[in-house]
Amino acid sequence: MSNKIRISIAGANDFKIFELVDSFHDDNISFDLFGVDKPEYHFWSNVSYIEADSDEEAVRLAVNDVLNGANVIFKGLVQTHTILKEVLKKEYGLVQKKLLSHVSIIEISALNRPVLLTDAAMNIDPDIDQERLIIENAIDVAHSIGIKSPKVSLLSSAENFNPKMPSSVKAKDLTEYYQDKKIDAIVYGPLSLDISLSKEIAEEKKFTGPIQGDADVLVVPNIDVGNVLYKSLTMFANAKVGGIIVGTKVPIVLTSRGDSLENKILSLKFALKTI
Amino acid sequence: MSNKIRISIAGANDFKIFELVDSFHDDNISFDLFGVDKPEYHFWSNVSYIEADSDEEAVRLAVNDVLNGANVIFKGLVQTHTILKEVLKKEYGLVQKKLLSHVSIIEISALNRPVLLTDAAMNIDPDIDQERLIIENAIDVAHSIGIKSPKVSLLSSAENFNPKMPSSVKAKDLTEYYQDKKIDAIVYGPLSLDISLSKEIAEEKKFTGPIQGDADVLVVPNIDVGNVLYKSLTMFANAKVGGIIVGTKVPIVLTSRGDSLENKILSLKFALKTI
Repeated sequence: MSNKIRISIAGANDFKIFELVDSFHDDNISFDLFGVDKPEYHFWSNVSYIEADSDEEAVRLAVNDVLNGANVIFKGLVQTHTILKEVLKKEYGLVQKKLLSHVSIIEISALNRPVLLTDAAMNIDPDIDQERLIIENAIDVAHSIGIKSPKVSLLSSAENFNPKMPSSVKAKDLTEYYQDKKIDAIVYGPLSLDISLSKEIAEEKKFTGPIQGDADVLVVPNIDVGNVLYKSLTMFANAKVGGIIVGTKVPIVLTSRGDSLENKILSLKFALKTI
Repeated sequence: MSNKIRISIAGANDFKIFELVDSFHDDNISFDLFGVDKPEYHFWSNVSYIEADSDEEAVRLAVNDVLNGANVIFKGLVQTHTILKEVLKKEYGLVQKKLLSHVSIIEISALNRPVLLTDAAMNIDPDIDQERLIIENAIDVAHSIGIKSPKVSLLSSAENFNPKMPSSVKAKDLTEYYQDKKIDAIVYGPLSLDISLSKEIAEEKKFTGPIQGDADVLVVPNIDVGNVLYKSLTMFANAKVGGIIVGTKVPIVLTSRGDSLENKILSLKFALKTI
């Protein structure tokens, strides 16, 4: 019984959530659903539904559920900021890292491995100290999903250092910072997206650095770069994606209303791998 | 004779340039090639080859060719900065706008129209005044390729104004600036990539603004956003792309060594449409 995984869903009164829960039918997983108005779906035995008066209460119940042993929070039909506001309250003690950040997992058929992307959804324009915390959160996630020494690419527009380009300056400083650190990861930049992900282009450009098309983690210089990359891959490259917030006691799965069931499932599976 | 189009190529001693020139076999087009070492290809009659001692001289000859009536400069195997350095020299008088900027044309099969992207290659982190000039250069290009009232989307991470997000603030200010201006274009932002390019997502998100998946021009807040978008679309979404520098007396086609013949052809065709 104690090895069971408990997933807490805030904002659960929706058919898409029913479909999600139904697709995880597994005796080792149980779901605690919290939402306004109880739906009429027939859930299986390991699913409980508790009605709340408001989204805020549904979120409060879901967060309290973590204090009682739930392993993951899944954002259903509530606003991201409603969840974050509750999670960040000091009395819960849920924040474990110095900075919370968003990590996406991206699966593209042209690549033979998943790639992590951070931070495409939470930190807007991180300075070098914040970027360091974002990188370390992502390395922890990479380790937890089985990538022993992740190759972390610090994205910029090219692989050449350009003092006039802020992303390039930040990447160079971070690369130097991590050079002497004993971490199970290779952190390198500035690097273009193509050298990060294409062995052929890395060869064509005669790039000799430590990442040659085999990046495991893409770190973007600001949220706009991450957002546009995430969206272009999902809209036009048939990428499957999932996303979580990390740095808290349990991962918080963040999917948006418009996400497909497939992407919601991938997000939750990704979160489960990180616990 | 006087209606003939003359294309000047700087850095022309390469088989890819031969293939490009050969694919434009047309009595109304002539090519003036400038390069180090004359290649042994058999060009057709409207092609001339002039040998230069160095890349710099090839560029100088190509730029001078514009003063003698050439309509387009095509960057072959020379560095972009070598071309720009020459073009920017005041004695030529080639710079006609207050700011030079890069405009890409992107063709994705999922979209039924080409989309322009600016600036993914030249201006690094434009302030609001520079962004205004970038937008106006792109509107001119859109008009010249037949888009009468282009819908210009100012990209950010979402469609909501967020005072903490610089791209959002810049987009809002620019939208307000253009509201009362009599220009043949609709300029609007902040806007996400998905609402800019997907009617379905615009509907799903109940977005009621003037651009609903039908953007003609994407304006990025900084070069890194443009670069990653351009590369993700070419690498993973089979996009065909072409790119030119505008703001000069004649367009300057900028393709990179690694670009496919198809993309070089598209770039040159794009440039020819803008003259």
